[in-house]
Amino acid sequence: MIGRRVALVGGASTPFGVRPTTWTELAQEVGAALFRAMPELRAEDVDSLFVGAAEPERFAFQSHVAPLVAEQMGLQPRRILQRTELACASGQSAIRSAYAAIAAGLSDVAVAVGVEKMNLPDMAEANSAMGCVLDRAWDGPHGATAPPFFAMVAQRHMLEYGTTEEQLAAVSEKNHRFANSNPNAQFYAKTFARDKLLRLPVVAPPLRLGDCSSMTDGAAAVVLVAEDLARKYTATPGWVRGTGQYSDFHNLANAGSLTDWVGMKHAVREALRSAKIETADLDLAELHDCFTISEIIEYEALGLCGPGEGGRFAADGRGELGGDLAVNTRGGLLGCGHPLGATGISQALEVYQQFAGTVPPVRQVSSPEWALVHNLSGSANVHSVMVYQRGQGS
Amino acid sequence: MIGRRVALVGGASTPFGVRPTTWTELAQEVGAALFRAMPELRAEDVDSLFVGAAEPERFAFQSHVAPLVAEQMGLQPRRILQRTELACASGQSAIRSAYAAIAAGLSDVAVAVGVEKMNLPDMAEANSAMGCVLDRAWDGPHGATAPPFFAMVAQRHMLEYGTTEEQLAAVSEKNHRFANSNPNAQFYAKTFARDKLLRLPVVAPPLRLGDCSSMTDGAAAVVLVAEDLARKYTATPGWVRGTGQYSDFHNLANAGSLTDWVGMKHAVREALRSAKIETADLDLAELHDCFTISEIIEYEALGLCGPGEGGRFAADGRGELGGDLAVNTRGGLLGCGHPLGATGISQALEVYQQFAGTVPPVRQVSSPEWALVHNLSGSANVHSVMVYQRGQGS
Repeated sequence: MIGRRVALVGGASTPFGVRPTTWTELAQEVGAALFRAMPELRAEDVDSLFVGAAEPERFAFQSHVAPLVAEQMGLQPRRILQRTELACASGQSAIRSAYAAIAAGLSDVAVAVGVEKMNLPDMAEANSAMGCVLDRAWDGPHGATAPPFFAMVAQRHMLEYGTTEEQLAAVSEKNHRFANSNPNAQFYAKTFARDKLLRLPVVAPPLRLGDCSSMTDGAAAVVLVAEDLARKYTATPGWVRGTGQYSDFHNLANAGSLTDWVGMKHAVREALRSAKIETADLDLAELHDCFTISEIIEYEALGLCGPGEGGRFAADGRGELGGDLAVNTRGGLLGCGHPLGATGISQALEVYQQFAGTVPPVRQVSSPEWALVHNLSGSANVHSVMVYQRGQGS
Repeated sequence: MIGRRVALVGGASTPFGVRPTTWTELAQEVGAALFRAMPELRAEDVDSLFVGAAEPERFAFQSHVAPLVAEQMGLQPRRILQRTELACASGQSAIRSAYAAIAAGLSDVAVAVGVEKMNLPDMAEANSAMGCVLDRAWDGPHGATAPPFFAMVAQRHMLEYGTTEEQLAAVSEKNHRFANSNPNAQFYAKTFARDKLLRLPVVAPPLRLGDCSSMTDGAAAVVLVAEDLARKYTATPGWVRGTGQYSDFHNLANAGSLTDWVGMKHAVREALRSAKIETADLDLAELHDCFTISEIIEYEALGLCGPGEGGRFAADGRGELGGDLAVNTRGGLLGCGHPLGATGISQALEVYQQFAGTVPPVRQVSSPEWALVHNLSGSANVHSVMVYQRGQGS
């Protein structure tokens, strides 16, 4: 990594859920939340804006969203503004773009914000929009939207390694339990015992309702600044220390293995290499649990356990606070809901708050130094990873 | 500007026009064209991909386009991939992102590609999609899509400064004439004399058909590399020397003046400041002539003439080759058509080819050193500018 060092210095989120607000109102709401959360941030200090949004054209009949979000948040970008799209990883893409811009001297203070409004009056329209994410010509016609695709992945993992529904439920129970400490989570203050999870309706076998993240409305924003400005905003900056991405295939016919996420291994290796650390150095990780089976395979691809051992890793509580690695303390996509563009931003916000020591004790990692954030997109064909280190201000 | 220097080292374009191809096929076609144009480029050297696309969700019912384009072009990005969206400036946004990524050491060899497919079997659907670009809640319901908005701008410029239809036609005639030397232009080998232009049907008064850029299908790609690699690909790199962007407003009710493009002045100033040059140093400029009135106002905002003098500047031929500054030698959006995401890439390609001295003599600027590329987006509320300098390989 070249150029200036870049720090994550704060952020805010709207409540995630089924919200009676428009896409535009969510942008306004997160702007107000951001300035409330960071009284030291002045609008005129923000020179750049990066908007992560997956499908406003479909969900809100609105494109050219970057200037709209700027106006709604009370910002007037004078260096860079753009929207980044990478489906479910759109939020992290916005952060990566902000990082590169600051490192390269194009921006000093940037806001990365994710906005998504997925619950529409006509949910058939919203579900149809999700059909845009996979290959609409080759895969869509065969019914390959997210739940059936990840159900196929889960079936294959069960066949190859004997992974069980109970192990899937262990992931769901953990992340929903963490969400009980997060007032912005869609499933805040809801109980999901494992036996209850195993009785929920089947969405696509073997995945039940509790195995799937939700179509969610929400927005989240974080602030990134150049190294010499970090101290102005926080005593506990999260330094961006590593980044990795890998695009493996697009058309499902070109996928190698359904259960060996080669792209994630590449992205993790690149991110850890640039940060000069190893998996064992991590204190917490936000992994993209769009479905329970995803988190299980991600344990394996991150190198926390061997191939096929992810189910047991979950059931043994090794992804819990106090286990091998605290995974998805925020509540994950399963507990928080998954407003596509906002998810990656919300994960980074959890990292910042964990570093600052401001999350509720029930999910606070003790003195964390290193954090990894992972997003997949599409049919797990693209993987995006960032690594942060807690700093003391410089 | 900090970090590594970044060079534009080549590129290619599909023919622009009404194409009997799909969105995906355009991506494949530009990939083939790129590797034909740059035999020294190996697919495995390309570590990152930046896709500029405005509305694939609407025009092609396809999101998550970055991995799709990668696959179609035969690329496997292992450092960064993303799509950038900034409506009509989506292509330049992809280039700016590639620049920042390379400068910051996240990429060594990046492809920035723009793809747009706007001609659909049902053109009502395509026209409706264009309604996404302005504010769909506040401006769309009042009919403010691009042609009526820029017609309003033209009327106001006529009222304030006495600009005439003949002056508008001078811009159109110039750019269509340049397009006659560009086989990839939509209006290649078509003649548009000024008196003919003034008899074309009115789209939105005072704008006639020849005053408006088209809904166009097309794709273009350029390659950007880190400083130490430039020599490997070309003897005439175009060094990225300046960048500027400004977001002025979104909702039309918040616009200050229709004819004084403050945002462009800001973006130009920032880009020239970072390049340490002045307008008078420029040898060529690609200005965003989505409508003839745009180019006229852009002459003024770029500082080529005073406020209100743009119409006369055009009529006097001062934007011609051999005039004050050669503007839109490629043929502009008017002559080439305007496939939203591809336009900004195609403009950068013209800069590269002008630097390389490989365009037809009729439009070749003599020994150009400095070039500026400008895009506006939406209701001219956002302006994006980049400055390139011709180099000798290092």
